[in-house]
Amino acid sequence: MKPINVGLLGIGTVGGGVFAVLKRNADEITRRAGREIRITAVADKDIERARRHAGGTVKVTDDAFSVTRDSDIDIVVELIGGTAVAKDLVLSAIENGKHVVTANKALLAVHGNEIFAAARRRDVMVAFEAAVAGGIPIIKALREGLSANRIEWVAGIINGTTNFILSEMRSKGLAFGEVLKEAQRLGYAEADPTFDIEGVDAAHKATIMSAIAFGIPMQFDKAHIEGISKLESVDIAYAEQLGYRIKLLGIARKRQEGIELRVHPALVPASRLIANVEGAMNAVLVQGDAVGATLYYGKGAGAEPTASAVIADLVDITRLHTADPEHRVPHLAFQPDQMRDVPVLPIGETLTSYYLRMRVLDQPGVLADITRILADSQISIDAMVQHEADEGESQTDIILLTHQTIEKNADAAIARIESLDSVLGKVTRLRLEEL
Amino acid sequence: MKPINVGLLGIGTVGGGVFAVLKRNADEITRRAGREIRITAVADKDIERARRHAGGTVKVTDDAFSVTRDSDIDIVVELIGGTAVAKDLVLSAIENGKHVVTANKALLAVHGNEIFAAARRRDVMVAFEAAVAGGIPIIKALREGLSANRIEWVAGIINGTTNFILSEMRSKGLAFGEVLKEAQRLGYAEADPTFDIEGVDAAHKATIMSAIAFGIPMQFDKAHIEGISKLESVDIAYAEQLGYRIKLLGIARKRQEGIELRVHPALVPASRLIANVEGAMNAVLVQGDAVGATLYYGKGAGAEPTASAVIADLVDITRLHTADPEHRVPHLAFQPDQMRDVPVLPIGETLTSYYLRMRVLDQPGVLADITRILADSQISIDAMVQHEADEGESQTDIILLTHQTIEKNADAAIARIESLDSVLGKVTRLRLEEL
Repeated sequence: MKPINVGLLGIGTVGGGVFAVLKRNADEITRRAGREIRITAVADKDIERARRHAGGTVKVTDDAFSVTRDSDIDIVVELIGGTAVAKDLVLSAIENGKHVVTANKALLAVHGNEIFAAARRRDVMVAFEAAVAGGIPIIKALREGLSANRIEWVAGIINGTTNFILSEMRSKGLAFGEVLKEAQRLGYAEADPTFDIEGVDAAHKATIMSAIAFGIPMQFDKAHIEGISKLESVDIAYAEQLGYRIKLLGIARKRQEGIELRVHPALVPASRLIANVEGAMNAVLVQGDAVGATLYYGKGAGAEPTASAVIADLVDITRLHTADPEHRVPHLAFQPDQMRDVPVLPIGETLTSYYLRMRVLDQPGVLADITRILADSQISIDAMVQHEADEGESQTDIILLTHQTIEKNADAAIARIESLDSVLGKVTRLRLEEL
Repeated sequence: MKPINVGLLGIGTVGGGVFAVLKRNADEITRRAGREIRITAVADKDIERARRHAGGTVKVTDDAFSVTRDSDIDIVVELIGGTAVAKDLVLSAIENGKHVVTANKALLAVHGNEIFAAARRRDVMVAFEAAVAGGIPIIKALREGLSANRIEWVAGIINGTTNFILSEMRSKGLAFGEVLKEAQRLGYAEADPTFDIEGVDAAHKATIMSAIAFGIPMQFDKAHIEGISKLESVDIAYAEQLGYRIKLLGIARKRQEGIELRVHPALVPASRLIANVEGAMNAVLVQGDAVGATLYYGKGAGAEPTASAVIADLVDITRLHTADPEHRVPHLAFQPDQMRDVPVLPIGETLTSYYLRMRVLDQPGVLADITRILADSQISIDAMVQHEADEGESQTDIILLTHQTIEKNADAAIARIESLDSVLGKVTRLRLEEL
């Protein structure tokens, strides 16, 4: 059979990985796909870099639009990233009748609705396994493997940089700032780490998973996003004493009232498998009503793990691209006319448990005042630690774990606790997910 | 669009689960599949049981062949189990042009080559996600999600009964026989538990995974199978002291010389995620050359988890059944003309590490004799524990962990060790997998 011709846009780390794996495993991949998959055109601003990867027979250009318009190309792989030119390129490829494979989570989370609508109009596939959790086939699991289920929630460690930092903070007892520097030195964090450490990258991925899990449009602008830069080592240590680990989770959860879509650090019971995912690894836990909990674990980034996902998409398209569009796997798991506009809930409506740490005066009646406020707010206490004040110290820490409550209710109670004379400064509040 | 009509053969636990989930999640499943999937015929020897599940509009019969021949049926779901009548029914369904979904690992491991050949001749799909690891979409991950990779090995906890027993033996320090009785009482083990505890069920599943991972025919008769019934608590305890857990693993591994296909208890480092899979849960670890290690975890059995996999296959077929047969996902991941007849190696050719426990006389020179034999056989020692003999005792245990060697080499060395006068009785030998 005629080979499938691929045009590659952007030949950085991942592009180089795609090139290397397609070449090294050409025999195995062809045996699976039923025909050869070959890169016949590469576009990169750095045309010398592109030439180094491409070798003699591949067309090399610095004009990516010439690839999206190239009539010899069957599939365009977009690895440029960002939401500016990448969007125009993907739309151009679609308009020219090309299937598209992309690893660009920001693009899909922000402009996915427009892109998938364009793809449907032109009857082409836009595949994006590499956009979430790198080499882990989580998109395929959610979209196909668990299609019998009403998905109840998805919770994932979907950013390797932050998981590396949290693992190091816990195991070495170091502060965030110190570990970030180490992560940058080791290449686990970028020079400007904002997107990772502030949770934006994880929120892009959680948004994509929410759409596939629940059959809703991408609603990135409604996601609640908190990163780990304000997390203190003392809370990691207290959490550990109580049998919990702190992980940055991307959570999408369906409730009667709407969808929770949120990224934030959370306490997770240390006995859970996902709590033991260490270093830069990723893992996604999916709760379905029939299957129960399933977990998917692997490398969430890096040249070859990401290339693994990109090439799996190329094989999928190659295997199926003659299927009539009515009988393909829908982009977002649900048939396009069956998406439902379920609202994303404001963060105040989140239903979860809380870890509360407060500095108090070591005097009689303090705990009674605090627990009275929580009881008035119908918030039950699940566990409590109060350290005895050191000799000569007049202050001590109280740590409380609560049962589930609505967040705005918890916040109101916390405000009342903070107004007590015996409570010093702010209450540190972290969410706790039993998973 | 016209609904897809499904005929269900066998309405036991899993059949009941398929009925229940298809009904409960009908809306969600239709939104994903693009058309209604409905069970229109049920065959079961117990016709009253079938009627109870089926309700008014479903055809009920005790003649399963009438369903495989029924011209109204699009897909036949085989949930009878075993390799006798189930084989005839699946072949009859195929001959009558029906797609087939089956959860029957024994059937596929033993007769899969014949069944898939028949399916290709008739251009129908035979789907079997439920045959391995219940609700975990591991077939899809291996066949599609990791298609870019040269799969190096697959190692799985793929039998819940034995994992439950091993978990209980470790956590409670009980003997195999005691825990088996408890497992039978709780419904985790059958009245005749042979297939589970002797590793046969796991070997069926490992055989299926080997075919998909490496593009080889099913070779169940070549699989090496050891169960857990002879495993002693003392070895679980010693393993734990050395930082390992003992798990029953199904392993398929590709080497230059051929394929290792084996089921046996093995020591696994306790720090590995898979070592922490407890109770009746399943998990499969897959090593790909591009993606690295990925892990898939969930419930490996039970009515609804298995139904989740069966229905995912129904949705897949519904989405794709108009695709021309040349452009479907191949049954065994590789195109049918691209399967390769790589031999399964005899167990003596296995390359792995070993845990050795031996009872010795507590006298000078014993350890020197033993380590000399290992050195002569080019077997390196990774760790050693020798307990001091109790007061008045003249015997003690030596435990050795070796580096990798070929099994027949290890066995020859063990025979020489057993022939030493200072070594009492047999050496206990367990394989150790670093994973």
